[in-house]
Amino acid sequence: MLPVFGHLNPDTDAIASALVYARLLTRQGTAAQAFCLGDLNLETPFVLGRAGVEAPALLPQLEAGTAVALVDHNESAQSTPNLGDLQVTRVVDHHKLGDLTTMQPAWLRFEPVGCTATLLLKLHREARLSVEPTDAWLMLSAILSDTLHFRSPTTTPDDREAVAFLAPIAGVRDVGAYALEMFAAKSDLGDTPAAELLKMDYKVFPFGDPLAPQRWGLGVIETTNPGYVFGRQAELLDAMRAARTRDGLDGVLLGVVDILNETNRVLVAGEAEAAVVQAAFGMPTVGDVADLGHRISRKKQIVPALEKHFEAQA
Amino acid sequence: MLPVFGHLNPDTDAIASALVYARLLTRQGTAAQAFCLGDLNLETPFVLGRAGVEAPALLPQLEAGTAVALVDHNESAQSTPNLGDLQVTRVVDHHKLGDLTTMQPAWLRFEPVGCTATLLLKLHREARLSVEPTDAWLMLSAILSDTLHFRSPTTTPDDREAVAFLAPIAGVRDVGAYALEMFAAKSDLGDTPAAELLKMDYKVFPFGDPLAPQRWGLGVIETTNPGYVFGRQAELLDAMRAARTRDGLDGVLLGVVDILNETNRVLVAGEAEAAVVQAAFGMPTVGDVADLGHRISRKKQIVPALEKHFEAQA
Repeated sequence: MLPVFGHLNPDTDAIASALVYARLLTRQGTAAQAFCLGDLNLETPFVLGRAGVEAPALLPQLEAGTAVALVDHNESAQSTPNLGDLQVTRVVDHHKLGDLTTMQPAWLRFEPVGCTATLLLKLHREARLSVEPTDAWLMLSAILSDTLHFRSPTTTPDDREAVAFLAPIAGVRDVGAYALEMFAAKSDLGDTPAAELLKMDYKVFPFGDPLAPQRWGLGVIETTNPGYVFGRQAELLDAMRAARTRDGLDGVLLGVVDILNETNRVLVAGEAEAAVVQAAFGMPTVGDVADLGHRISRKKQIVPALEKHFEAQA
Repeated sequence: MLPVFGHLNPDTDAIASALVYARLLTRQGTAAQAFCLGDLNLETPFVLGRAGVEAPALLPQLEAGTAVALVDHNESAQSTPNLGDLQVTRVVDHHKLGDLTTMQPAWLRFEPVGCTATLLLKLHREARLSVEPTDAWLMLSAILSDTLHFRSPTTTPDDREAVAFLAPIAGVRDVGAYALEMFAAKSDLGDTPAAELLKMDYKVFPFGDPLAPQRWGLGVIETTNPGYVFGRQAELLDAMRAARTRDGLDGVLLGVVDILNETNRVLVAGEAEAAVVQAAFGMPTVGDVADLGHRISRKKQIVPALEKHFEAQA
């Protein structure tokens, strides 16, 4: 039984793609099971509920040498801590290729599309396998989530075409209305502790010299209600500074993306971070907030600018 | 214009796959051109002559940041020396994933099949593009070459199926007879200097501690006439020892694969190498030769055993 899992601090794509890929592999003769690497965000249970699918279990500790399949990530910093001891036999991903290596030739399918699920739909079609309605729900939701219903600059024609293909199979008549329901579910943050809000969609990235990288924690809250998040600004900044100390990071930023207006105002943990934000984006930090305008994609806009900045420093 | 190239010391798959992938990308709207990273072996000109295709030019020095596509390799040690300065946007390969990273999300297609060309045929079929007879020749030849006409343990059902699909398009009626002609061309070594014989199909592999790896040069001569090669044993051993010194390597081995009998007798450069061969394969070296029996695949049998040996040492 091949474990299939997405990244730490899973988002809807990490969960949905693990479920869909596990089922696809099983249908193709490789028994597989989806797992997750942490608690779900608020959007994913909404999606799973609509699809009528149970959440995957937490990945148990795996013995060294166990074969595994990764979806929606490939870097060790975003995976299970003992990834280096496991045998990665399959990866389906849409991120840049990081420090992954394999001991044997493996199945790798990477394309620069907006969502892993877009690639999983391609795998179904290439294998001439029908798409089950449940899988269509999951893939459709993952694509709408990752691309913010095509608002993100990561969106490609393949993602749009996939949604158009999947919506009738899933039985979703009004894709826009469904996306808004998803985003509202994600934005219903209630009394979630600030430390959890920070970590909901949070990844640690190495920057600069590969042998002695700076490590930055970059969180994102995509919301239709940014006012709520900024109402909790002081708590969030405390949580960011605590994470920096506890995890030995060089910097922590938390982007607050207004989904409907496609803007990103970033909480900046301290003066060191503010200096980097000024240098990398040319934007000042005022009252612990830097307005990065329409730079709403961590993958395509935030991380590349920081990489460029730290490479110039190295 | 996107440069497409295979590995150093190119074999038929490295050349054929660069030519075919460049043409496929061009047909799909990405203007591309094939290049090579060194002189051709004796088999490849025979194949190109039969296909009526000119050999690709040597890759010129590329400016830092140039986008490139790799076929049939991904590790920096087997690529152009300034690979780290280039922007790898596409890779089609059937080797294990090495030290490659990308700055941006890229197109990666890796599968554990016997030949890169098998994957290129899949790309044609997935894109519903017809296969031109010339491309069919090239892909067919590459698959027969890499799998030694299905004798190699790297052969998969996909490789066999690809040859069955391609042969009628290429107009090859007797695949076995054509493969023997190819192997005879490859075995017609004439008065090729020993240093060139060593480097015809030669790759440098890092083993053990990734931060301070041992570096071994592993050559292979696949031939229908091993007697010729062993007739030049003294010269070849001299060339191996010279390469070890000149390139600062920790070891050099040269496998002499008898294609028709599917056996591998390995020239062993010195006592240090003999000790490793004994430890990794359990086989003695007698008169500078270790008989590794049916272990004819460098990728699937020789390199993994050496990796395992050096990891146990690290």
